[in-house]
Amino acid sequence: MFENEERTNIESLGEFGLIDYLTKNIKLTQPSTIKGVGDDAAVLNFENKKVLISTDMLLEGIHFDLAYTPLKHLGYKSIQVNLSDIYAMNGIASQVTVSIGMSSKFPLEAVEEFYEGVYLACEKYNVDLIGGDTSASKQGLVISVTSIGYADEKDVVYRNGAEEGDLICVSGDLGGAYTGLQLLEREKLIYLENPNIQPDLEGKDYIVERQLKPEARKDIIDLLKEIEVKPTAMIDVSDGLASELLHICRQSNKGCSLYEEKIPLDPMTFETAREFNLDPTVCALSGGEDYELLFTVKQADYDKIKFKMDITIIGYITEPSAGCNLVTKAGNVHALTAQGWNAFKSNG
Amino acid sequence: MFENEERTNIESLGEFGLIDYLTKNIKLTQPSTIKGVGDDAAVLNFENKKVLISTDMLLEGIHFDLAYTPLKHLGYKSIQVNLSDIYAMNGIASQVTVSIGMSSKFPLEAVEEFYEGVYLACEKYNVDLIGGDTSASKQGLVISVTSIGYADEKDVVYRNGAEEGDLICVSGDLGGAYTGLQLLEREKLIYLENPNIQPDLEGKDYIVERQLKPEARKDIIDLLKEIEVKPTAMIDVSDGLASELLHICRQSNKGCSLYEEKIPLDPMTFETAREFNLDPTVCALSGGEDYELLFTVKQADYDKIKFKMDITIIGYITEPSAGCNLVTKAGNVHALTAQGWNAFKSNG
Repeated sequence: MFENEERTNIESLGEFGLIDYLTKNIKLTQPSTIKGVGDDAAVLNFENKKVLISTDMLLEGIHFDLAYTPLKHLGYKSIQVNLSDIYAMNGIASQVTVSIGMSSKFPLEAVEEFYEGVYLACEKYNVDLIGGDTSASKQGLVISVTSIGYADEKDVVYRNGAEEGDLICVSGDLGGAYTGLQLLEREKLIYLENPNIQPDLEGKDYIVERQLKPEARKDIIDLLKEIEVKPTAMIDVSDGLASELLHICRQSNKGCSLYEEKIPLDPMTFETAREFNLDPTVCALSGGEDYELLFTVKQADYDKIKFKMDITIIGYITEPSAGCNLVTKAGNVHALTAQGWNAFKSNG
Repeated sequence: MFENEERTNIESLGEFGLIDYLTKNIKLTQPSTIKGVGDDAAVLNFENKKVLISTDMLLEGIHFDLAYTPLKHLGYKSIQVNLSDIYAMNGIASQVTVSIGMSSKFPLEAVEEFYEGVYLACEKYNVDLIGGDTSASKQGLVISVTSIGYADEKDVVYRNGAEEGDLICVSGDLGGAYTGLQLLEREKLIYLENPNIQPDLEGKDYIVERQLKPEARKDIIDLLKEIEVKPTAMIDVSDGLASELLHICRQSNKGCSLYEEKIPLDPMTFETAREFNLDPTVCALSGGEDYELLFTVKQADYDKIKFKMDITIIGYITEPSAGCNLVTKAGNVHALTAQGWNAFKSNG
């Protein structure tokens, strides 16, 4: 797994040595960070802003497979997955904590690779790493990230604000992360059967990257601010479009009509889904891990949204008694169901 | 391990069903909690207070052994361990997030037991559970808690503020959690050798409870406020007195004289350490997990502190060139070293 020549034993550093080593180059850049790593707790200053907190856990064998996940990518993704939740509140992400549990047989260089990805994401998204925990683990790699952000009260967007007639919008395209995962899983099996065969991912960079190195959509939050559109409800697409849209409808007590033909799919997602005999629409609806933003806007905002290349209008909100429906390309209407990625069912 | 008759399969609920089930009775009590569980992020309001954030990870086989740790105690302890860090900043703890990864074979009743402990701790310490993550785990029980608190800027106490001549104080007594652990480990071995022998913990309730159900010292923070003493530096004792005192000295760039005879030990700790042929002082210095508060105060505050039953003065801060020293009962002076609990060395 690790091609590094160098292997430094973590035990030789001890827990505090390891923390010092990993945090010695931290640069704090956020005015809201008063004190980061190095005390019992971090100290933050948000003055009259509201504080946003979100947390996610990533476990080896459930959320990632080290057979095909470079540690630097994993560090990067761990941060993105979390920042995405802050953006989904229409907030500004400002800090993260990263806790990691790993075998004491993990070489220091591997931990460093992971943190390289963490730092890269922090730098790119302008957030400070302000704390965390490191521990030995008897059970593979365990990662827990908490992200902290802020917003003016009037800017916070919840899941429950969708109104009848609102337009349902989604950023980017969907289903890519899931088809990328199918590809990586296939190549892993081939490799396990014959280690001499090199993985064939040629021409598949986009969907592989969607799986291994997703980007949280800070740019969409910035864009919405710029064009002065405040969504009425918002959520990030971590479990598949269907599941997320149902969350918005349930929490807003509304129904929806979602148009299959409008769901944005990258050609590579489409083609790869076909290769695997998968329905591309199902990949978008139930695949998950795209980390796009799903949101609703008032119809009055249509003109501001309509020519934005990276935002697609995929349906509209209805009264609750109409239910949540998918209108297929053939014009049939089906009740929308969440097959979404379920950590308990699919990996139990 | 589980004596419950009832066993409900978690898979039958799914992840969202499980979250709904576990969070349906949450009562938010903190004025600073605007939105808790149920959106992409929690929303908090601290107005002109500074925000404190701390996080800890607890892993099965490293931090706890389910052979002798009731899940309710584990839930309770997971919260205490984290709140302790907020109190160590002289802050008021107000919210926690709890993430848990567990085998899908874990019965729902077991998860409920864990959360009973979580809720009990939250209620007793007046904090809101505002978020978290649940996941399947292929690798035993994984717990990650983030605690959030607040303080006025002028009240925050860091580790680095100790001055020459300051008195070193500690709350409660030390070494109990560690001797309690020795006892539990011994009884586990006896039980594994002969399951018909019942564990003999009679008369040892105090130290067993110190290990399994520690209490964060919110009362000490309240007391210090009441008697108008602001510590110059503070840390909680999670890794043993020696390690924590060295943190304060290193970060304050000072030395210290610690008096062995002053270190507060409960008689049961003393007696049990002797039973195990352990030096009771070493149990206090290096044992860890006592979750007491170690702090320094100005000499001018001596009169306010001296008759407080639950605070012991154990030494004083010196100039850095004097080093960090332990003065033994026999009057010998030894350099203080941190053998502290090291998750990498002791469990690798």
